[in-house]
Amino acid sequence: MLQLIELSAVVASGTFGIMLARKNRLDFIGVFTVAFITAFAGGTLRDLFLDRHPLFWIEYEHYPVLIFAMALGSQVIKAGDAVIEKWLQLPDALGLGFFAIVGANHAVDAGTSLFIAALMGVVTGTAGGAISDVVCNEVPRLFEATPLYATCAFLGCWIYFGVKEVSGSEELSLTAGIVVIVVSRLMAIRWNVCLPEHPGGSQ
Amino acid sequence: MLQLIELSAVVASGTFGIMLARKNRLDFIGVFTVAFITAFAGGTLRDLFLDRHPLFWIEYEHYPVLIFAMALGSQVIKAGDAVIEKWLQLPDALGLGFFAIVGANHAVDAGTSLFIAALMGVVTGTAGGAISDVVCNEVPRLFEATPLYATCAFLGCWIYFGVKEVSGSEELSLTAGIVVIVVSRLMAIRWNVCLPEHPGGSQ
Amino acid sequence: MLQLIELSAVVASGTFGIMLARKNRLDFIGVFTVAFITAFAGGTLRDLFLDRHPLFWIEYEHYPVLIFAMALGSQVIKAGDAVIEKWLQLPDALGLGFFAIVGANHAVDAGTSLFIAALMGVVTGTAGGAISDVVCNEVPRLFEATPLYATCAFLGCWIYFGVKEVSGSEELSLTAGIVVIVVSRLMAIRWNVCLPEHPGGSQ
Repeated sequence: MLQLIELSAVVASGTFGIMLARKNRLDFIGVFTVAFITAFAGGTLRDLFLDRHPLFWIEYEHYPVLIFAMALGSQVIKAGDAVIEKWLQLPDALGLGFFAIVGANHAVDAGTSLFIAALMGVVTGTAGGAISDVVCNEVPRLFEATPLYATCAFLGCWIYFGVKEVSGSEELSLTAGIVVIVVSRLMAIRWNVCLPEHPGGSQ
Repeated sequence: MLQLIELSAVVASGTFGIMLARKNRLDFIGVFTVAFITAFAGGTLRDLFLDRHPLFWIEYEHYPVLIFAMALGSQVIKAGDAVIEKWLQLPDALGLGFFAIVGANHAVDAGTSLFIAALMGVVTGTAGGAISDVVCNEVPRLFEATPLYATCAFLGCWIYFGVKEVSGSEELSLTAGIVVIVVSRLMAIRWNVCLPEHPGGSQ
Repeated sequence: MLQLIELSAVVASGTFGIMLARKNRLDFIGVFTVAFITAFAGGTLRDLFLDRHPLFWIEYEHYPVLIFAMALGSQVIKAGDAVIEKWLQLPDALGLGFFAIVGANHAVDAGTSLFIAALMGVVTGTAGGAISDVVCNEVPRLFEATPLYATCAFLGCWIYFGVKEVSGSEELSLTAGIVVIVVSRLMAIRWNVCLPEHPGGSQ
């Protein structure tokens, strides 16, 4: 089941990366690179931090081939900007949820504390998008008072730990964590739920 | 003693990160993320480069908890921008000094040459701040003709090696290295000591 | 022979980094840092991804010393901006070719598939320049519709694999791969060969 979730995460994140690159009118290499970073950067950081080798996209080498094929395929599909703008959030939210829960699961397996595992889930879920943002010279969404993003991933990881503790079921807890992240993220966008700006600065 | 220095480095760098984030009016997640990057990015690079596992903030898992608590605490403390602007440099200089010397020490322990160890000290001391700068879309201070920064760290590492060679005392050499870095950094800011711009370009 | 190619790659990339830093009028630390990143970032990512330790610039510690000496030497050499602008592309193309082929070779040695090895060649060849670009706050050349860049590296890696398969000669295949990358990159610049922009976006 973890394998299936990871595959879904790669597909969702890759789709988001392609749509982001298309929005920025990049050429094929740019599209592939952004899709690659979005899909693999978070998990790569997690694997490096936890000393897991080979990296997940080297071990399952069909992942990069899949991203390559998706980037190629996107060259022939035409879709208007309005469609992209409207649906951009969905694969982003799915990728966030899938990757965060897989990341937290791997960290727990590696023997970290739950707090570190939740952080690792957040890193796995958000780093790809954040690095893509930096690389495209935008202010990363992590740093703007945008609708809740990392918060959803952090919350979902604790739901995952809690449900697993209570029910003992891996399937149930994985599903619960992912659903909480994706739904809370989409709701945050829908009703524009933000954390308050830092209250410290005068004015 | 190393342990105590590392803890001080985390506290000083985290404080700097929080003040930087507050200056940029980020929300709680932004504050935590910037503080986390400032406190842990340099040491993470060092640990990855030297293949030290688990990473120092995974091994000592109270460090991230501490940063989390500091970021939370900062939400209720109000301080004017003027105060922040005035004192921002102090935790930055302290973090630079503490982390650089710890980094150089770990590299020597790992068997690198002194030149590599000094570089590793500079990376450990400066990377957190530099990555935070990039992430906040500012030109990293490493790259502007600002008062001496990496130079102080590089210098202090050699002082540390020299004093250790001569005196044989770990405590004395660690202290000497840190004092040289912090004092030289604060003096460079006070009297605006810069390296000359590259002389190569015409005009 | 691989050793010689790697040394050439370090010299070429370091030269490019120094010229880039000079163009941006950085001070000595900035020049050294940009040269260091340009020369070592790609190979460092490759070594981390493939779990090769010690990192190549820690194992061959004369590389960083060499970059340090080159950065120092550049402080006394004066050259006009026009000269730099004109010749900037040559060390960049050479570094791309040398590093890409060395990277692909190491990946094959580590037992990856050819597709992953070609990607690793592209990462090794392009990451240094791309990170330098981000750090200098420019849009990475990977992401603009500039003349072919990563494409040349990707192509050259497959030429290298193909010639090695057919001829069985390491020297011949290494040379063929490098020549293809450098020549195709210089030709792409000369005749401004670009990939088309992403066709997806309306307007």
